[in-house]
Amino acid sequence: MSYTFLLPCANPPAPAINLLASKISRTRPSFPCRSSMEKQQLIKGSKLMEFPYLTDPHRDTMVDLISAMENRLGSHLLPSSVPPDVEHYQNESGTSQGTLHIRCGIDSSPIDFVLASWLHLEQPTGGALDITNIAGYLKSSTDVPHFQFELVKCSPTFLILFLDLIPRKDIVFSPDYLKTYYEDTQLEKFRQQLDQLPEVKPYFSSSLYFRCVVSPTGILVSIKCEDGAGPERVEEIIREHVRPMSNDIMKIWIDMCVGEGVQVGETERAVLEKRDSLIKSKAIQMDLSSSMPKQFGQEVADRVLRVIKSVYNV
Amino acid sequence: MSYTFLLPCANPPAPAINLLASKISRTRPSFPCRSSMEKQQLIKGSKLMEFPYLTDPHRDTMVDLISAMENRLGSHLLPSSVPPDVEHYQNESGTSQGTLHIRCGIDSSPIDFVLASWLHLEQPTGGALDITNIAGYLKSSTDVPHFQFELVKCSPTFLILFLDLIPRKDIVFSPDYLKTYYEDTQLEKFRQQLDQLPEVKPYFSSSLYFRCVVSPTGILVSIKCEDGAGPERVEEIIREHVRPMSNDIMKIWIDMCVGEGVQVGETERAVLEKRDSLIKSKAIQMDLSSSMPKQFGQEVADRVLRVIKSVYNV
Repeated sequence: MSYTFLLPCANPPAPAINLLASKISRTRPSFPCRSSMEKQQLIKGSKLMEFPYLTDPHRDTMVDLISAMENRLGSHLLPSSVPPDVEHYQNESGTSQGTLHIRCGIDSSPIDFVLASWLHLEQPTGGALDITNIAGYLKSSTDVPHFQFELVKCSPTFLILFLDLIPRKDIVFSPDYLKTYYEDTQLEKFRQQLDQLPEVKPYFSSSLYFRCVVSPTGILVSIKCEDGAGPERVEEIIREHVRPMSNDIMKIWIDMCVGEGVQVGETERAVLEKRDSLIKSKAIQMDLSSSMPKQFGQEVADRVLRVIKSVYNV
Repeated sequence: MSYTFLLPCANPPAPAINLLASKISRTRPSFPCRSSMEKQQLIKGSKLMEFPYLTDPHRDTMVDLISAMENRLGSHLLPSSVPPDVEHYQNESGTSQGTLHIRCGIDSSPIDFVLASWLHLEQPTGGALDITNIAGYLKSSTDVPHFQFELVKCSPTFLILFLDLIPRKDIVFSPDYLKTYYEDTQLEKFRQQLDQLPEVKPYFSSSLYFRCVVSPTGILVSIKCEDGAGPERVEEIIREHVRPMSNDIMKIWIDMCVGEGVQVGETERAVLEKRDSLIKSKAIQMDLSSSMPKQFGQEVADRVLRVIKSVYNV
């Protein structure tokens, strides 16, 4: 999922990054495998984990989620094969920066890839947009939903949050799918909890297509705290609500991933693959291809996009 | 679509009515065909058109929509074959009442049936719920969305509105479907127009399944005017916004119905039929079967439900 799905403007200022590493890299990582400890340290020392432009609660939320993925799914994943100049990149003046961390699943894992990134985008109108993104995509051998967390800081008093387990099937056609992954897991309670805060409002993406991608319990909201202690209240909401519920939903998702799961037959696999592929193609078509060059220049955009398309397999 | 999808409570107080008349009745109406003028008069003199519990703007909205369907789609439709004791029914004490008007499409029409109804439901806690419903369902020979309008008066200062063209396909899998019926028709502007009113808020159905049935431009909102001139403001919103946009959306839908439309192949017809059927089954399973007897008693409920199931073909 591209996080520019979230941006309301007709001409989105943010590029999207999501995935990377060619199919080959999934079985042949571009650098030798490191021990678990070494990998942890690699991430810890990376530009990704610096989160230079975020508030403490926002950074803590990202660190929690990345750590949960690394710790619980580490044995499923190959080391990152993102080239250094895509792991961290910037525009010519250095005012806009991006990072990208991706690890593909090993052959025997249901994980296709996990991804984490942040983007800092200077806006022509002043101010900056800070986008953080964590995703976990599954292979078509399972029908477990994809995980997606995106938190966009539009200003110190205005955020957009997308937190969802993205369905792999048409739920209208598959009531059992709804029951297994959304009703039995009681995901709705998280959405309702956030919905009770007066600063939180449902957010409508400008993309009608994206609205259809979101699950029925998907959290897609704006958080606006313009009165009184605005920035402090935003931080409080992240610390007391967004962070704990993101951790809870990540845990539910990881439990699904490492659990028994549903065995998917050949015909259904083809359908899942096509549906996933349509979502990814639509994401690239909608924003990556046009906004990335604007934000980072053609050369950088081409480099990052090549990697993304390769992992998207589109 | 059952309108109790709209009700937030775990134990919905309202039954749902939607459709009626057996498959046979579509080609053999249970009473002789009347001229167009006679049919108009029949509806005009019916209990349906009395709308005894509604405010003027709410009644006017219903009359507009019913008239548009009757006038523009009249030649597509058989006369109503709803038995008199289902056209209007009530509970033993007469405190709750329901009406139902249904006309099935002639063989050569893409219309499966059109439906209009109102329900007045006394609540155990005092007050009453007034539900009005207009729907147009299509056959599987076309993939044009279904039309659905439901306006629920929970109190003089609180309404719930559902106004949508319900997709027949998984839009994630069918971006062309989205373009044809939702983007090119600019339906989003109506949702945005209503969204700008401070009294209007997105409404989340308690049914996760129902949330997936709604289109990306679907209007599913609460209208709450508790401050100041509450009831008058509610009437104003219906008169100035709900009524004109309902008429506009109905016009868009009718144009689709009588237009060229997409020719649907055999395989796709089977899928459309199954998907439509799942939605209807779910509606009956979720509320009709349990709430109808509670509200009207078993005998009345059985009578109405028999008719509904017959038209739903489930």
